[in-house]
Amino acid sequence: MSDRPIGIFDSGIGGMSVLKELRRLLPGEDFIYLGDTARLPYGTKSLQTIAKYSEQVCHKLLEYDVKAIVIACHSASSSFLNFPFELSVPIFNVVTPSCEQAALYGSPMGVIGTRATTEGGVYQKELTRLGIDMKIYSQACPLLVPLVEEAWEDDPLTNLIVYRYLAPLEKLGLKSLVLGCTHFPMLSSSIDRVFQKQVPLIEPGLALAKTLKLKQGDNFQLSKRIDSGQLRILTTDISPLFQDLSHRIMSGIEIPEPELINLN
Amino acid sequence: MSDRPIGIFDSGIGGMSVLKELRRLLPGEDFIYLGDTARLPYGTKSLQTIAKYSEQVCHKLLEYDVKAIVIACHSASSSFLNFPFELSVPIFNVVTPSCEQAALYGSPMGVIGTRATTEGGVYQKELTRLGIDMKIYSQACPLLVPLVEEAWEDDPLTNLIVYRYLAPLEKLGLKSLVLGCTHFPMLSSSIDRVFQKQVPLIEPGLALAKTLKLKQGDNFQLSKRIDSGQLRILTTDISPLFQDLSHRIMSGIEIPEPELINLN
Repeated sequence: MSDRPIGIFDSGIGGMSVLKELRRLLPGEDFIYLGDTARLPYGTKSLQTIAKYSEQVCHKLLEYDVKAIVIACHSASSSFLNFPFELSVPIFNVVTPSCEQAALYGSPMGVIGTRATTEGGVYQKELTRLGIDMKIYSQACPLLVPLVEEAWEDDPLTNLIVYRYLAPLEKLGLKSLVLGCTHFPMLSSSIDRVFQKQVPLIEPGLALAKTLKLKQGDNFQLSKRIDSGQLRILTTDISPLFQDLSHRIMSGIEIPEPELINLN
Repeated sequence: MSDRPIGIFDSGIGGMSVLKELRRLLPGEDFIYLGDTARLPYGTKSLQTIAKYSEQVCHKLLEYDVKAIVIACHSASSSFLNFPFELSVPIFNVVTPSCEQAALYGSPMGVIGTRATTEGGVYQKELTRLGIDMKIYSQACPLLVPLVEEAWEDDPLTNLIVYRYLAPLEKLGLKSLVLGCTHFPMLSSSIDRVFQKQVPLIEPGLALAKTLKLKQGDNFQLSKRIDSGQLRILTTDISPLFQDLSHRIMSGIEIPEPELINLN
């Protein structure tokens, strides 16, 4: 059982930032990554619609005999925590580990993400569910996703836009800031600049890898292999951005060609 | 027959810029607007996937007894011209009328739009099909859509980004520039600034309204009514942006509440 693959999904390609950290920290695991590129992004859609899409994606991943599913998309994680559904395997999301890690740094925490993530109030609800008493400030930053997709991470215009979004947070004495969207780790140097590197940035992929190690039990075991984990990539559309964006996110690490699948 | 509604569709809310012009110029017509907000945007997806979505949308509009369908989305128009499908009513797109209008201004013409629109080369193909010999320059401007959705039309940052995209076109002696994305008419003052108002901007909604008047015949007739045309709005998701964006695009004109429908 422990050598079965872990399924991981995102609305598109950005979730590879989470995949990258998981592969680095769990190099013996096989992963099947599913990017729902035919319906991306999820972040502008309602939580109900995202829940419907997520459930379709999870059922598709079960066909590949995955032992667990990681929701790498923050909007889908938000939706799942609001509208959970039952599966035959454990489901992990990126919101819970980020909250747990932010708690270690103390109050207040900051969260940046898409509208679906920040306006859904999911981090506040998750802190409450976890019994963590923390003040939270959040900011929707919808333009940061297309900026990364344009490969403008190092462009001065990007610094200006990041500053526009984050300057109001800079005065609030944040103890940590959750990069609550898969694309945002690509902008960490620009974000660090706003906070003069005084606020720790929480990368959900890292937080999640720790959670996977800790949450092993009767229904979920990591592989005993120490390396050579395999990767398959499935997408629901041929995305013209795939090659460029996936290579930038994976820092040039070799990845297989995506296999086109159909969800509806 | 002539009093049946005209169906008009877009991947989302932006197509209301076309609807607005059609209602202004054809005030006696009933319109049914369908925004496929559950799968927006189309502009980042493959032409094949867009074709599949467009055909589903058109079949849904036929259930409302429309007499014709207007594809207000440029990406969907591009896809349709590459992968046409048959329907029982006439289909109009936004690319053909823009090419015809650009021809009146002469060569070269410019086109700005999403990647799906500019990289598909559809304007060049359409000019060829129409027998118009013109040089064409195009530029994908993916960031302009989220800028409009953030309501940053009048922000200095928007001017900087518009300038970044359009400066290379400014030196090419364009005789006209097609605003080849539904959101772009909202940025026309910023775009005009780059070209010092020396290049006429082609708004596809206007060009299309003229086409509808000209293309009447046995299978398509405009209404004989002179005003009081009705409007229904259908969307595939409850979009948190709907109220704000639709009001800005429609310049505050009263519009009905959207009705939620399901396409798959």
